[in-house]
Amino acid sequence: MIPIKPILDGNKRAVSRAISLIEDESHYASSLLRLLYPHTGKAFVIGIVGPPGTGKSSIIDAMVRCYRQRGAHVGVVATDPSSPTSGGALLGDRLRMGLHSLDSDVFIRSMASRGQSGGLSPTTRNVVRVMDSASMNPIIIETVGAGQNDVSIASVADVVVVVLMPQMGDEVQSGKAGFMEIGDIFVVNKADLDGADKTISDLRALRSDVKGWEPPILKTVAIGGKGIKEMLVQIEDCRQYLEKKGYFARRRMAHLEEELLGDIVSHWTQKLKLRAKRTSRFRAIVREVVSREIDPWRASEQLYKELDMM
Amino acid sequence: MIPIKPILDGNKRAVSRAISLIEDESHYASSLLRLLYPHTGKAFVIGIVGPPGTGKSSIIDAMVRCYRQRGAHVGVVATDPSSPTSGGALLGDRLRMGLHSLDSDVFIRSMASRGQSGGLSPTTRNVVRVMDSASMNPIIIETVGAGQNDVSIASVADVVVVVLMPQMGDEVQSGKAGFMEIGDIFVVNKADLDGADKTISDLRALRSDVKGWEPPILKTVAIGGKGIKEMLVQIEDCRQYLEKKGYFARRRMAHLEEELLGDIVSHWTQKLKLRAKRTSRFRAIVREVVSREIDPWRASEQLYKELDMM
Repeated sequence: MIPIKPILDGNKRAVSRAISLIEDESHYASSLLRLLYPHTGKAFVIGIVGPPGTGKSSIIDAMVRCYRQRGAHVGVVATDPSSPTSGGALLGDRLRMGLHSLDSDVFIRSMASRGQSGGLSPTTRNVVRVMDSASMNPIIIETVGAGQNDVSIASVADVVVVVLMPQMGDEVQSGKAGFMEIGDIFVVNKADLDGADKTISDLRALRSDVKGWEPPILKTVAIGGKGIKEMLVQIEDCRQYLEKKGYFARRRMAHLEEELLGDIVSHWTQKLKLRAKRTSRFRAIVREVVSREIDPWRASEQLYKELDMM
Repeated sequence: MIPIKPILDGNKRAVSRAISLIEDESHYASSLLRLLYPHTGKAFVIGIVGPPGTGKSSIIDAMVRCYRQRGAHVGVVATDPSSPTSGGALLGDRLRMGLHSLDSDVFIRSMASRGQSGGLSPTTRNVVRVMDSASMNPIIIETVGAGQNDVSIASVADVVVVVLMPQMGDEVQSGKAGFMEIGDIFVVNKADLDGADKTISDLRALRSDVKGWEPPILKTVAIGGKGIKEMLVQIEDCRQYLEKKGYFARRRMAHLEEELLGDIVSHWTQKLKLRAKRTSRFRAIVREVVSREIDPWRASEQLYKELDMM
């Protein structure tokens, strides 16, 4: 059994080991997480999402600086493989975020991303839980995508900040990454470059007000820290708005619902696949489809019924 | 009801309409597909997969040229949004593949890709079926990824060609995209650039022989057509090898098994989610997790049992 006290006390080495167990899907991970769970739920979780190259890690760097000045213990989970924050994931777990890695009140963890998809790994929620139990607050998650296939940042973070940059009209317009739907706050970083105002007006035309909150659109120049304080004010305003209206708790419930359903579905999927492969009818039906005696849609109806009855 | 005769006769307008119905998930699509299904299974399906920028569409362009010289009716399904072959998907359905779009025996269809993931949309199989029923043969599928979350090209194509280019050692080494496992043939395109031999030796070190077939590694310079004829010879050799050993039919069975299981799982997932949300215990359990009375893992065990009993 792994002792949880060092983790709860915020010992960085203990936290780091716990996260490694989770990433490695160790047998100890789930019992550890169950012990830590009662100590979670305190941290405010901020999601920072945007296409590669928009400067998310400079923004996080500047955010951490501000939070540190207020004496906060900050946790950072970085998952964008092309970003310097998490580039380290490819090089073991080297941290490259300037001076913070030497600062004992900032904990930065880079995670290898899963495949080419933009979402978060399902383990991200649990990594956040470990940091939360270690009294890190706020916890900042950086990711490149909105997660259509993996877990979306919007189902882990309390507040989502979408980071774009000038000349990104197309990314916004095509809306492919789903950024417009999940942003509570939009940031046009590198706002000293040409085209910032155009990007802002594109965003203005597309943003949709969610339950009375009109997502603000801010300009930042993260290298140099311009606009970051204003951004933190907006993040805090958003949080207070959500809390006042009861949406904050409701979001957390929705996140948990999604997690539980995801668990059940993946558990059941494994069972179903095994069951199907053990069914002698399965191979027979597949053969009938290959020989064009029946079509795949009739086949899946038949199989569905047979499996349901067992 | 949509008449299938024009599709079977290879009328391009009819084929195009049928594919649009499938992409739009029209009500007519499934009955149309059921009617077409008995006329499928004839086409040889070649998958062309590789990172953006490796020149997949130039390769396909040159392949189409060769197949046309032999009098084949070629179908192309392109899904890489950054590639000129399918770039058209963003601009409606404009085809940009040189002169082929004017050639009535080549049918090129670009499909919008799903999100940022590298796989194929689940509808790709059915688009291939429409082309197959229209006697297009071979059918070439172009995609950017190996598909960890969406459908993998290796579960649609009969033979998979992985396209890389010099200076891509890292992509190969990290193996993140899963290219090494799925390639029957490796092509180092733009082989006139520096580093081609290094990429080839990297590939040689990593390739694994699958059931007696050692994937050949070829050099091409697709713009100019260099190496393409040799590539087609290797594709044909691979096909003959697979057929001789019985692997060809077995692959098709495996693809179908995967498709049927996928159908059943997605059908059941929808049902399960509805069922869970209708269960009064579901919200109660979620609340207990939020208040830290129980943990998410116990909760999903409980829910799993309750749902299974219903």
